[in-house]
Amino acid sequence: MNKKLVRLLTLLLLISTPLSMASEMRNVILIIGDGFDDQHVTMGRNYLAGMSNALGVDQLAFRAAVQVETLSQDGLPIYVADSANTASALATGTTTSIGRIATNIQDEDTETIAEQALAAGFRVGLVTTSSITDATPASFLSHVSARSCEGPDEVLGSTYYGMPQPACPEDARENGGPGSIIEQLVVSGAHVLLGGGQKFVSQTTADGISVSALAETSGFQVITQPAALTATDPAARLLGVFAEETLPVRWRGAGGRIAEPTETSWLHQITDYLGQTTEPEPMSCEPNPEYGDTPSIADMTEVALSHLAHSNSQGFFLMIESASIDKQSHKRNPCGSIGEIAQLEEALALATTFAKTHPDTLIIVTADHAQAAQILPEPSLYSHYPIPIYSPGMTAIVSTPEGGMMRINYATNNGFSEEHTGANVPLFSNEIGRSIMQPFMRQRDVNQAMASFLFSRSNEPGSTD
Amino acid sequence: MNKKLVRLLTLLLLISTPLSMASEMRNVILIIGDGFDDQHVTMGRNYLAGMSNALGVDQLAFRAAVQVETLSQDGLPIYVADSANTASALATGTTTSIGRIATNIQDEDTETIAEQALAAGFRVGLVTTSSITDATPASFLSHVSARSCEGPDEVLGSTYYGMPQPACPEDARENGGPGSIIEQLVVSGAHVLLGGGQKFVSQTTADGISVSALAETSGFQVITQPAALTATDPAARLLGVFAEETLPVRWRGAGGRIAEPTETSWLHQITDYLGQTTEPEPMSCEPNPEYGDTPSIADMTEVALSHLAHSNSQGFFLMIESASIDKQSHKRNPCGSIGEIAQLEEALALATTFAKTHPDTLIIVTADHAQAAQILPEPSLYSHYPIPIYSPGMTAIVSTPEGGMMRINYATNNGFSEEHTGANVPLFSNEIGRSIMQPFMRQRDVNQAMASFLFSRSNEPGSTD
Repeated sequence: MNKKLVRLLTLLLLISTPLSMASEMRNVILIIGDGFDDQHVTMGRNYLAGMSNALGVDQLAFRAAVQVETLSQDGLPIYVADSANTASALATGTTTSIGRIATNIQDEDTETIAEQALAAGFRVGLVTTSSITDATPASFLSHVSARSCEGPDEVLGSTYYGMPQPACPEDARENGGPGSIIEQLVVSGAHVLLGGGQKFVSQTTADGISVSALAETSGFQVITQPAALTATDPAARLLGVFAEETLPVRWRGAGGRIAEPTETSWLHQITDYLGQTTEPEPMSCEPNPEYGDTPSIADMTEVALSHLAHSNSQGFFLMIESASIDKQSHKRNPCGSIGEIAQLEEALALATTFAKTHPDTLIIVTADHAQAAQILPEPSLYSHYPIPIYSPGMTAIVSTPEGGMMRINYATNNGFSEEHTGANVPLFSNEIGRSIMQPFMRQRDVNQAMASFLFSRSNEPGSTD
Repeated sequence: MNKKLVRLLTLLLLISTPLSMASEMRNVILIIGDGFDDQHVTMGRNYLAGMSNALGVDQLAFRAAVQVETLSQDGLPIYVADSANTASALATGTTTSIGRIATNIQDEDTETIAEQALAAGFRVGLVTTSSITDATPASFLSHVSARSCEGPDEVLGSTYYGMPQPACPEDARENGGPGSIIEQLVVSGAHVLLGGGQKFVSQTTADGISVSALAETSGFQVITQPAALTATDPAARLLGVFAEETLPVRWRGAGGRIAEPTETSWLHQITDYLGQTTEPEPMSCEPNPEYGDTPSIADMTEVALSHLAHSNSQGFFLMIESASIDKQSHKRNPCGSIGEIAQLEEALALATTFAKTHPDTLIIVTADHAQAAQILPEPSLYSHYPIPIYSPGMTAIVSTPEGGMMRINYATNNGFSEEHTGANVPLFSNEIGRSIMQPFMRQRDVNQAMASFLFSRSNEPGSTD
C-alpha cells in the first residue's frame, strides 16, 4: 500500500479514538534534533521554507533557549557537550560528563523520565535515525559509563576510526552487570524502539542467545524490513532496526559533494596578499541514492504513535531523534543535514496532528547541543578587497530553491570530523509548554518540566479534575 | 502601515485620550547588541554569570527568535546581513540591501520608528558605543544609500583599510541633498545622541560651519568630555561624543592578547598526520588600559533616561547599542566582546529599574545579526586521536572566573576581519513583549510590534480605559 495512504488511514484511526479515552491520556512527545542549533534551524528554514518564511518549529506557540551544561569528571564546568551527557541531562535531570549514558560523574545510575513513566504505567517509545543504541536514545533507557558500550561485544571494548574506545566491564553481564546498551534497552519495558542498530541486535549475549532472541523473550516483535513496519501488531512491543547502525539520510549534495576547501594558487601559498583562490562551485541538494526504502522519521513516528496510543488510557512518553543533523554536520554535508531537518519537520507535523485529538500532549522540539556549521556571507563582506579572502575551513555554497546562494562553512578543526559548539540551543513547544516552561532553562529544567507535566495531573492547564 | 495613516491614528488617539491617561508615559527602550547571537550570549553567560547561572537577558519574561532578512540590489534573498540593512529593518520595517541606511533597494527613504515617534510628540534618544554615525544608530534617524557616508567629508568619498568606500553624492548638501549621516542626525529633532564620533562632529558642512555649530543651532548642548555628562541640562537636547569614532572597550585579553593561530611543527606542515601542534596558552580578561574615563553604556543610558523622561508626559523611543560585541568579534578578541556584553547587561538593569516606575515601558534586547565566534570543545572531542587536531582559524582559550576553560574560535575567513554569520538572532523582552510579540518573527515584525505598542494606546496591556 502507498505510504501516504497508510499514513492517512492510521491518522483517521487515531483521530477516531473515543474522546473519553483520548481525553484521559497524558503524553509527552520530545523531538530532539541532534545538533539542531540556531545556525542549523536557519539553514533549514532558508532552504526548506525560504528566507522570509517559517518552518513548522517556528509556528509553535512557545520558544525558549536552553543552556547546555557539562561537567568534567572532577565537577568543573565544561562549555561544550556531547550527545551522551546532554541526552542524559534531558532524560534524568542530572548534569554529567561527556560520554556518559544516564550515569552521574560518580558513575551512579540516574533514573530517567522514561523509566519513571514506565513505573507509573505510561508507555514509552524511542524513535531515531541513529542506531537505537546511540547516545541520545540510549540515555533514556539504559545506564553505562561510556556511550561506546552499545552491544555485548562493545561493552568489553571496541575501536572507532581505529582508536580503542572506552569499555564498560562493570556493566557486562559476564561481570554481573545489566549488560550493554542494547541489552538494557530490550529488557527496559519499552514498548517501541525504532531506528538503526542491526549490528547490535544480531550480537550474542553472555547467555548464548542473540539480542534479538532476548528481545523476543521480553515480548518484542523484532523487524528489520521497512515493509514490516505497517504490518505490526499495535498491542505488542515493537523493535525495528532498519540499518546496521545509522539510517541512510534522505538527501546529499549533488553528485555526493560535501563542503570542500578553497583552492589556492602557488603564489598565494607563498604570500597571503597575492595569488588566486578558487571557491567550490555552488551545489544543489539531491536525493541520496543510498536512502532507498529506509523508513522516514515520520514513517516510524506514525507507527510509534499508533502502538503507544493503542488501548492506552494512561498516556505515553515518546522520544523522537533526528540524529543526522549532527552526524552530517560532522561530515561537512549541509544537504545531509537539511534533508534530516525536513524529516524532523514531518515528524513534528504528525505530532501536532496527534495533539489536536489528544490535547493533553506536550510537544517539545529541542537540540542537544550546538554544532559546527555556520552560514557565511556569499560573497564575503570583504570580497571587494584586492587580496584573497576565503575560509580556512571547508565551504559548501548551496543553491536554494528560492534562488539564493547559501554558503555553509565548517572550520572547527582540520580533522576527519567537525567539533560540536557551545551555544545555548533553541526549544520549541506547543501551547502547553508556554504554561509550564520559562524562556530560559537548563536542560535539567526541561526534564523537570516534562516530569511535572506527565506525573502531576494537577498541573493540567485548564483542568477541572 | 501607511505613514500618513500612522500619523493620523496617533493624532486621533492623542486628541481622544483623557488627560489622566495622557500623563502616563509610553516608552520603548530597544537595546541592540551588535552581533549578540546565541554563541555570544552563551559566551557572556559562561564568563559573567557562570555556566549554570543566568544573565539579565535570560531573566526577562519573553524570548523569541528573529529571522534576519537581507536582499540583493536585485531583490534576491541574501542569507547574511550587515548592521546597516538589519538596523534599517528594525528601524523602518522594510527589508533592504547590505550597506543601506533607511533606504530601500530602490534607494527611496523609508520612514523610521524614531521619526514617527518624533512626529507623534515622543522624544527620541540614541546611545551607542560606536560612533553615533555608525550603521546601527544612523538607521534610526538618517537616510543614505551607503553607511560609509558618515560626515560631510565622507559623503563625497572615503577609504577604509585603504579601500575606496561608496560615496553618496546625491545626499551631499552641496548637491541639494539632506547631507551626510551626522548632518541628518543633528537636525533630525532627536533629543539625545550619545556615543563616539568626534571625527564627524568636528567636520565642516557645506555651509561653512562645523557640524558641532549646526547641532547647537538645532538646540543641542554639545559635549565631548565624559565629566560633562552629569552636568547637562535635562531640558535641552544633548549631543555627546566621547571618542573620535568607536568608544574604547572595557576589557581586553591579558596583555592585549586576542585569538591566535595554532603553531605547527615543520613535520606537520609536510604531512597532516604527523608532527606537533602548539595551541595558544589560556588567557584571562583584564581591564583595557585605553578605556580610561570612557562613559559606560550605563552612564550614557542613565543620562539619556533622565533627559528623555524630564517633564515628558507623552513618552520616548530610546535605542541603545552595545556595538563592540560585533566589532571585537571581527577583531577576534573574545574579552573585548565579553566586556561589552557586561556593559549591555548594566544598561538592561537600568532600563528594568526605570520600567518599574514607568510600567508602560516596552524593553527589547535583540541582536542585529549573528557573528563569527564559536565556543569549541576544550580539549577537542578528538584530542585522544594520535594525529594533530586543531582549528584552522584563530583560537583563544579564555579562563573563566568559575575555573573553566572556554575555547573561542574564529575561522570564518583568513583576512583582517571576521565575517558575520546567518543564524536567526535572539530577542528578549519584558512582560509587555510577551503580549505583543510572537516566538518567531522577522526583524520587520519587531518594528511593527514596537510601532503598534508606541502609537496605539488601545494595545495597553491591562488597560481598563
